[in-house]
Amino acid sequence: MIPVITISREFGSGGHTIGEQVAKSLSIPFYDGEIVNQTAVESGYCKELIEEQGETTSSASKWFDISAASTMYFQSPQDEIFLAQRKVILDAANKGPCVIVGRCSDYILKKAGIYCLNVLIHADIKHREERVLKRYPDVNRDIDIAKRIERKDKRRRTFYRYYTDRHWGKYENYDLALDSGTLGEDTCVHIICELAEKMNR
Amino acid sequence: MIPVITISREFGSGGHTIGEQVAKSLSIPFYDGEIVNQTAVESGYCKELIEEQGETTSSASKWFDISAASTMYFQSPQDEIFLAQRKVILDAANKGPCVIVGRCSDYILKKAGIYCLNVLIHADIKHREERVLKRYPDVNRDIDIAKRIERKDKRRRTFYRYYTDRHWGKYENYDLALDSGTLGEDTCVHIICELAEKMNR
Repeated sequence: MIPVITISREFGSGGHTIGEQVAKSLSIPFYDGEIVNQTAVESGYCKELIEEQGETTSSASKWFDISAASTMYFQSPQDEIFLAQRKVILDAANKGPCVIVGRCSDYILKKAGIYCLNVLIHADIKHREERVLKRYPDVNRDIDIAKRIERKDKRRRTFYRYYTDRHWGKYENYDLALDSGTLGEDTCVHIICELAEKMNR
Repeated sequence: MIPVITISREFGSGGHTIGEQVAKSLSIPFYDGEIVNQTAVESGYCKELIEEQGETTSSASKWFDISAASTMYFQSPQDEIFLAQRKVILDAANKGPCVIVGRCSDYILKKAGIYCLNVLIHADIKHREERVLKRYPDVNRDIDIAKRIERKDKRRRTFYRYYTDRHWGKYENYDLALDSGTLGEDTCVHIICELAEKMNR
């Protein structure tokens, strides 16, 4: 069986597209936006709130302790969303090989002892700006795109730190880290697929 | 032409062996210990001192400024060794494709605008301990190997910080980062070779 592939990514690095292509090429399910839909069903919260809260947090003052979650009398909507999302991720991975993008999936699946290939996709700000402008051609170009990218990444990192008590982007947490800017998306897809097939056991 | 390949590595991660195999497979020169010999000729210092000072530093209180080096009246032996080593690295890379291990080569060649594939090799402490004990079977096993590995890495990181004013091991600085513990040495060699050939231009 090939491993579950988690993709952590910088905003605008093409991690979503790369993950989608990998899943297509290996004929396995792909989870990114789909996690939002399933978390909505699981938690009862609406999709818009999950999209906003499912990867970002404004609470940076404490760490969330998963192991103590069941003993808490009160959970914030954000924590409830995280726990529902965590369940969706674990259910998906337990069904068999798939590609899961972001949402602390690397940490959640490692904790659960699930066989994974953890990948980080990054690129320099120039490449990410270009990709964002190409993907969202209607974006208001008066806004400083680089600043928006940085803000998005900062919120995702805070979310990761809050729910895992680990720093996002440390090389130790990934089997493979790829610069999609210098290597190109197709090469990234090729390396990940080849590796996943090699890890077939 | 394939790029110059720089290998940054954690101590005990197999980066030296992986680099050596890559060079052999691509039929290009390999520079690790050889840099010590050539730096000795270049600087006039003995090999033993270069081995000790060529990748580690005890000066953590200031950054070395390469651009100001030629205007300095006095340089420490360590700085002289760094500058001689830098020249050896640049001369090697200017001759054509090769593999260079450590010694800030990623930073030195980037600054010089040389076409490179920058690779980071890492592994968890368990894998690194095993590899060190296998490579140095005569090592005194009463010594805490993990602590020795950490100390060696700490000194290399300080050296890198001192001469580049960058933090060692940040994913942004590498095109490719590989966990040799989970992926295995042979897979790392294969990925690097394949990528270098793809980058042939």
